[in-house]
Amino acid sequence: MPEDLSDLRYQIALANRLLTNEGVLDAFGHVSMRHPTDPGRYLLSRSRSPGVIEADDILEFTLDSEPVAPPTVQLYAERVIHGCIYQARPEVTAVCHHHAPAVMPFCIAGVPIVPVFHLGAAGGETMPFWNQRDDFGDTNLLVVKPEEGRSLARALGSHAAVLMNNHGATVVGRDLRELVSRSIFMCHNAEYQLRAQILGKVTTLTAGETRLAGTINAMATVTNRTWEYWTLRLDKAGGMPSPVAVKSKARSKTGSKARPRAASVTAAPSRTTPSRGRKGKKRQTRGRAR
Amino acid sequence: MPEDLSDLRYQIALANRLLTNEGVLDAFGHVSMRHPTDPGRYLLSRSRSPGVIEADDILEFTLDSEPVAPPTVQLYAERVIHGCIYQARPEVTAVCHHHAPAVMPFCIAGVPIVPVFHLGAAGGETMPFWNQRDDFGDTNLLVVKPEEGRSLARALGSHAAVLMNNHGATVVGRDLRELVSRSIFMCHNAEYQLRAQILGKVTTLTAGETRLAGTINAMATVTNRTWEYWTLRLDKAGGMPSPVAVKSKARSKTGSKARPRAASVTAAPSRTTPSRGRKGKKRQTRGRAR
Amino acid sequence: MPEDLSDLRYQIALANRLLTNEGVLDAFGHVSMRHPTDPGRYLLSRSRSPGVIEADDILEFTLDSEPVAPPTVQLYAERVIHGCIYQARPEVTAVCHHHAPAVMPFCIAGVPIVPVFHLGAAGGETMPFWNQRDDFGDTNLLVVKPEEGRSLARALGSHAAVLMNNHGATVVGRDLRELVSRSIFMCHNAEYQLRAQILGKVTTLTAGETRLAGTINAMATVTNRTWEYWTLRLDKAGGMPSPVAVKSKARSKTGSKARPRAASVTAAPSRTTPSRGRKGKKRQTRGRAR
Amino acid sequence: MPEDLSDLRYQIALANRLLTNEGVLDAFGHVSMRHPTDPGRYLLSRSRSPGVIEADDILEFTLDSEPVAPPTVQLYAERVIHGCIYQARPEVTAVCHHHAPAVMPFCIAGVPIVPVFHLGAAGGETMPFWNQRDDFGDTNLLVVKPEEGRSLARALGSHAAVLMNNHGATVVGRDLRELVSRSIFMCHNAEYQLRAQILGKVTTLTAGETRLAGTINAMATVTNRTWEYWTLRLDKAGGMPSPVAVKSKARSKTGSKARPRAASVTAAPSRTTPSRGRKGKKRQTRGRAR
Repeated sequence: MPEDLSDLRYQIALANRLLTNEGVLDAFGHVSMRHPTDPGRYLLSRSRSPGVIEADDILEFTLDSEPVAPPTVQLYAERVIHGCIYQARPEVTAVCHHHAPAVMPFCIAGVPIVPVFHLGAAGGETMPFWNQRDDFGDTNLLVVKPEEGRSLARALGSHAAVLMNNHGATVVGRDLRELVSRSIFMCHNAEYQLRAQILGKVTTLTAGETRLAGTINAMATVTNRTWEYWTLRLDKAGGMPSPVAVKSKARSKTGSKARPRAASVTAAPSRTTPSRGRKGKKRQTRGRAR
Repeated sequence: MPEDLSDLRYQIALANRLLTNEGVLDAFGHVSMRHPTDPGRYLLSRSRSPGVIEADDILEFTLDSEPVAPPTVQLYAERVIHGCIYQARPEVTAVCHHHAPAVMPFCIAGVPIVPVFHLGAAGGETMPFWNQRDDFGDTNLLVVKPEEGRSLARALGSHAAVLMNNHGATVVGRDLRELVSRSIFMCHNAEYQLRAQILGKVTTLTAGETRLAGTINAMATVTNRTWEYWTLRLDKAGGMPSPVAVKSKARSKTGSKARPRAASVTAAPSRTTPSRGRKGKKRQTRGRAR
Repeated sequence: MPEDLSDLRYQIALANRLLTNEGVLDAFGHVSMRHPTDPGRYLLSRSRSPGVIEADDILEFTLDSEPVAPPTVQLYAERVIHGCIYQARPEVTAVCHHHAPAVMPFCIAGVPIVPVFHLGAAGGETMPFWNQRDDFGDTNLLVVKPEEGRSLARALGSHAAVLMNNHGATVVGRDLRELVSRSIFMCHNAEYQLRAQILGKVTTLTAGETRLAGTINAMATVTNRTWEYWTLRLDKAGGMPSPVAVKSKARSKTGSKARPRAASVTAAPSRTTPSRGRKGKKRQTRGRAR
Repeated sequence: MPEDLSDLRYQIALANRLLTNEGVLDAFGHVSMRHPTDPGRYLLSRSRSPGVIEADDILEFTLDSEPVAPPTVQLYAERVIHGCIYQARPEVTAVCHHHAPAVMPFCIAGVPIVPVFHLGAAGGETMPFWNQRDDFGDTNLLVVKPEEGRSLARALGSHAAVLMNNHGATVVGRDLRELVSRSIFMCHNAEYQLRAQILGKVTTLTAGETRLAGTINAMATVTNRTWEYWTLRLDKAGGMPSPVAVKSKARSKTGSKARPRAASVTAAPSRTTPSRGRKGKKRQTRGRAR
């Protein structure tokens, strides 16, 4: 993998860790990203818990979910989820598969998650269900075969997310930050919806409100602010990925103009940086927060 | 901005962070304060997550929510909430807009929050709803236009807080400490109310109890004690704003006599104070706690 | 106050902090203890949040809740709760008044907390309600007047705890450790009971089971083990009171034989002990845990 | 006890702490393991809170739950749970008894926990109830007598876990990692099931799905990954057991090939390792995570 993907691989590791720290991912689940210059490939970690992924763990796959380089490590069994969605949805550049506690009750009850507050509009007006049982009968519920991945992608259709019965959810985004923001607010939305139902009534946004609020939520001003906020929370929790060396040329290629200082600063130090103890990290956080 | 607002700006940053640490604010939401000597102006942070606001971020606005100095930074889109309420409610000196998880289910279900325990009386006997849809049809639910802010202020009327359908809440106070206390106990009240409903019956305080308990809750002995308590929790969580230099003359103007030691100590060190590492902060906390 | 109460005052401060760390107390609530040699007096902190109380804050009161020494600090308004119960219940040596989130829904719904698991038996078979409104009409719900305290004590009767409508609860114990254990397990019991009700059915212990399990729960082997466990959790959270000097003679008077090492070690260091930084405390914890 | 059990005793202490850190155990509950070379014995801690158990605390018992060496410390009263199950279930090599908050509402309501998501299949299709009252009338609910232990083992039958009315649960596994994984996912499953019921409908896995997903869940690739993940969380929380010296010969006997690096690294340092301060531990975690 050429050096100029270093920052991107760092961002993918970071996205996995942000979503773990916010309670969307745990020992399982994964976040991928489409290759920035080759739309026929995508980037995904080797098989490990998302909260401990490092930039070095991110590997390259074809859209058939075959590793580009012969693998020397274990791979996620469910990577066809990512490949099949990238095949079916050309505009999608980031995918997250998760089993968030907030979402699971809906996947078990078969109750649709509907937009109940402005930030929840990020998930769109409706969210389809996919029941693996319908097409494949009794399985272990993992999405492993290409035909299972394709069936899931068909159920997703043009939506922002698909709920998987008795399993979890898969969310898509036009970039990593929209994906992370959408995944987290989808969980908040689900929590509020369940509690509103306890109170007796679930009032949803109108179609117009969902469209208008959804548009705002997808703007970089929003997704950058939330990305910075969740990064600070992750840093305070001591969960940041190890920093990687980034060539300036590389960064201008893969970096987004909207990237807040947090990411740049973190990615900047070379691997030869001396030990970052707790104290050092704290100071860095403070500097960033100014 | 004259130097003598330093301590006040520190207190506003602190209020934002206290409310974040107690789960009222998150990546969004904001706290403002009316200018202490010019009632036609108010103080509010530049646009950033409330948990990371520093005293330096606090800017001055007219009641039309225009920045007094030409802004070099991004501003909150929803600042008309603050300006319009300061226009409509001369006795109000502090405003908080939030989307607290405890309150959202009520905003979604359209169920009123009612006082169910003595500290919940801080929110008053009734809390009106404001549905942006009623006056403005489909919007992105953000309160951005002056007429939207005025409509919200009208719905608030003379109450302590207004619930905004599918959006959140806006709370007011006669000072920063009452505001913070009221916002947090409103969330506790909402949590207990929802759980009491699960148990089958929600018994509210009587009108007389709400008035009497509300009066006690607003006393400085109560709001100072809770302010100190939440400050200690924030400090332990490593979330205090950076200390600011305060001139003694300035402090005698803006400070309240009832201010507990916590705030004074924290605000005292000058900017030239050497690095406050974790260890240093801990020692300071202990000293304060004695 | 004679020096030989130092350890006891430390234990009372510790009890207040343990209950804060376990979510029973917050900015409010208090724990008292009857004077070990003068049953006509009791020990209670000056007015401050229970999570920050130090041994030095513990003052002596008559059973009429008057301070024995002229006070130079603010006192809890609700101390008659303690005095009136010590008057009415000679065998009680420890009292806790709290507004625990787990218990509040029951106080609001007027639903009795019943023993639903073996450790919950510590609260006894039934727990009476006391509604301040019944005897005193509209109040601010604080228990401030002697007649209010006496009315509460009458409602408590011979029970382990009394639920106070729209306010909180008051719990009693034969010693500090039983009190702490009972207060915490009463909250766990309430949480489980509410969730069992969501599932559809609340099965209680039989009267015989409650008596038998309650007896076990009150044994020193149980209350010492839980005291040690909660102390370790508090220590890990950085919340221990400052250590106090204890004379060996004093300790043999006030100490219980069953006291685990944790308490002894913590209370032992004199005030001249050099700075206990985070690192030092950690090492001490480890030593204790062996 | 011969030196070659050092690593195993460390793993048992670790399992107790992992389950405490994940909210399955608290001040009470215990994890045991069958002796690796003598199936007529099992290993269990002396009586103390599971979150503070060290390798040195692990003692050896006969299947009649008698200590092999004369005890100098207090023993768990309920150890017959372990002995009676090892007698009845030759293939079981690990047992956990707990009172997890997630499971208690089901034990109180008498509502069966059923598999509602793929990882919940680890608990099997059905989970029997055992009501101590049925065979023994009113008790203190502790399982102390051999006949009580045998009655419980009979109720467990060939299942993965048994729910104990108004008390808790007992879970079994073919190895320590399966046991830990099953115990934790049983709690997640219970949480989701309760919330799905709030939403209105609990859809379970089919018998075929439960069998297929259960098989995957029991594979070492899954239980090692979750073990590594929960170990990293425990380490970050500062809760790891003290390291023990392990002879290389001993480790090849008791160690499993699938053991991830985390365990090996942690167990490796000898007792002469210098002070592991917070900083040192952090560095070790990072090294392991790579």
